[in-house]
Amino acid sequence: MDFFQLRITDHNTKARSATLFTANGIIETPVFMPVGTQATVKTLSPDELYEIRSQIILANTYHLYLRPGDGLIRGFGGLHRFMNWKKPILTDSGGFQVFSLKDIRKINAEGVLFQSHLDGSRHMFTPEKVLDIQRNLGSDIMMVLDECPAHTSTTEYLYKSHELTLKWARQARQIFERWEPLYHPQYLFGIVQGGINPDIRSASARLLTELDFPGYAIGGLAVGESKKEMAAMINISTDILPADKPRYLMGVGKPEDILNAIESGVDMFDCVMPTRNARNGTVFTKHGRIVLKGGRFKEDQEPIDASCDCYTCRNFSRGYIRHLYNTGEILGLRLATIHNLRFYLWLTGTAREEIMNGNFKLWKDEMIDKVTHTI
Amino acid sequence: MDFFQLRITDHNTKARSATLFTANGIIETPVFMPVGTQATVKTLSPDELYEIRSQIILANTYHLYLRPGDGLIRGFGGLHRFMNWKKPILTDSGGFQVFSLKDIRKINAEGVLFQSHLDGSRHMFTPEKVLDIQRNLGSDIMMVLDECPAHTSTTEYLYKSHELTLKWARQARQIFERWEPLYHPQYLFGIVQGGINPDIRSASARLLTELDFPGYAIGGLAVGESKKEMAAMINISTDILPADKPRYLMGVGKPEDILNAIESGVDMFDCVMPTRNARNGTVFTKHGRIVLKGGRFKEDQEPIDASCDCYTCRNFSRGYIRHLYNTGEILGLRLATIHNLRFYLWLTGTAREEIMNGNFKLWKDEMIDKVTHTI
Repeated sequence: MDFFQLRITDHNTKARSATLFTANGIIETPVFMPVGTQATVKTLSPDELYEIRSQIILANTYHLYLRPGDGLIRGFGGLHRFMNWKKPILTDSGGFQVFSLKDIRKINAEGVLFQSHLDGSRHMFTPEKVLDIQRNLGSDIMMVLDECPAHTSTTEYLYKSHELTLKWARQARQIFERWEPLYHPQYLFGIVQGGINPDIRSASARLLTELDFPGYAIGGLAVGESKKEMAAMINISTDILPADKPRYLMGVGKPEDILNAIESGVDMFDCVMPTRNARNGTVFTKHGRIVLKGGRFKEDQEPIDASCDCYTCRNFSRGYIRHLYNTGEILGLRLATIHNLRFYLWLTGTAREEIMNGNFKLWKDEMIDKVTHTI
Repeated sequence: MDFFQLRITDHNTKARSATLFTANGIIETPVFMPVGTQATVKTLSPDELYEIRSQIILANTYHLYLRPGDGLIRGFGGLHRFMNWKKPILTDSGGFQVFSLKDIRKINAEGVLFQSHLDGSRHMFTPEKVLDIQRNLGSDIMMVLDECPAHTSTTEYLYKSHELTLKWARQARQIFERWEPLYHPQYLFGIVQGGINPDIRSASARLLTELDFPGYAIGGLAVGESKKEMAAMINISTDILPADKPRYLMGVGKPEDILNAIESGVDMFDCVMPTRNARNGTVFTKHGRIVLKGGRFKEDQEPIDASCDCYTCRNFSRGYIRHLYNTGEILGLRLATIHNLRFYLWLTGTAREEIMNGNFKLWKDEMIDKVTHTI
């Protein structure tokens, strides 16, 4: 069985739908991946994630390496068993978190030296080390170590950074060539970088394509650049990346960003927005955003979205959830998280259906109007 | 249908099992009632409470009166609808919370004047007012307003307090005589007080019995007195209270306290201990308590209790739950809460079976040894 099967490409846009086959289950794209940073999607149980039809979740190599440690997780038989998640998992390389540490990390040709944000202890991530960690974790999809340059980098720095990312990608690709996983097959994705420089972006996409990874991520976006710049970089990347490999836009984003990126030919997404906003009291619906903490929902007996099929919308009112926020009750965070993730999964799942039906462009334009609205 | 049907009284002890019939379902005793202070049992959804076989939950009149307000809950059609809980609810009178406010409340013959712990606003609870609130909430079982005197009170104060509690109970009983509920039948319990003074306790039990309430609570215990004093007060009360009415020991307690009180003829219990301890990292099992946060559980791949049938024990290891605590993840609080409540419900449910089998005393003595142990 091939890892990736392209099902259909839209006639009017670059949108596509595909199926990924992994040892832990299939993934139908476009797909949104709930973020489970520390081996748990914040506030939810695996059963709740299955119920909202999550196909794959993401976990963070940096966090799990520090706590509880990838060695400990290996002792449990890998991350799937440790957290009792029976579907696919994608792990990042830890690079993004490490580069966010800014003042307590140092990059050299071999990798990146950093201090733990927890206890200040010193660690080194190299292309090989992050693959070793991801082997211990046993994710289905792994990421290469890359550098995510600041949005404000000079062209000179962007070019140097791209060269380094490429060098690391080559090393990772070679390790992957003779890869022996611990539990089941794992697939390695290269990461397109290059900031918002069109030339470096295309060079990055082209040279990575030559390395023939099982899949490709588009990294370094949604870090402060404009919507237009982001869109341009996504299109440059998807124009070059091979049609017969999955494409994953890292850390993006708002519902409208996801719809636009699907139109540009992206297959996979992850973002903390649905889970984080839920905990802050903002929920997403087909008719726009709702700041549910607001006093005006106090007596509101309607569900968050009457057309939504999630546990929250089938059983609870806005007024009750608002009361839970107002009194600091954890059930409020849970109910909003269930709903927001279900919305994101509905959005990508419906995008898939509309691509299949040949109606994507029309549906997407309507949907963009709605989701950018605040109720 | 009678509200209360006594099924069996143990031959060797005063233990008994009974069935309560309410508009929202039946309750088989002995029963533990999970505490849902603010219209949610902390961290859990109604579905999770059904799954662990909760028969009835408790909610707090004081908290709900202040937030979101009993009028608002009435607008939702009562507390059951507001929180989407389809089984019985017991509400306290708010008295205990108000008396805990100490410095910001003042008692007189009419009731108790207090300031909200939230915003300092002034409120008055009278016997009638707390019944009005509980009518708006629409609980299945209501409590009369009582005074819970400090454990260190003088005999003189205890006597005066008992007279006041009795006066309020009479008023409440009269109101209940012409009671018209909003949604479905509601039953009112009187509350035996009297501190740890045997004479006042028995007077309280005797005089309340004359008022012929549908049920009786034993209040003012587990507030600092010794285990022996508590046991004596429970026995005095259950010796006097009528056999054909339910008996509810308020706010108690540890697993061993509950087993002892069942032996003394108590039917109903509530306590924050299983939920609060879960959030602090201590779990209860048939073999003793476990401080799950401890580093020694880091690599422990066993469930909390292999013989427990809860979602947590069927799916997760001590090591994983310990990791969730260690990283501040909410799922850890949830999993421990599910388990601890399931344990309390198992304990009271099994007590019922053993009473039915005529084996209660033997089982209870064995169980006390185990549950007082720390693993």
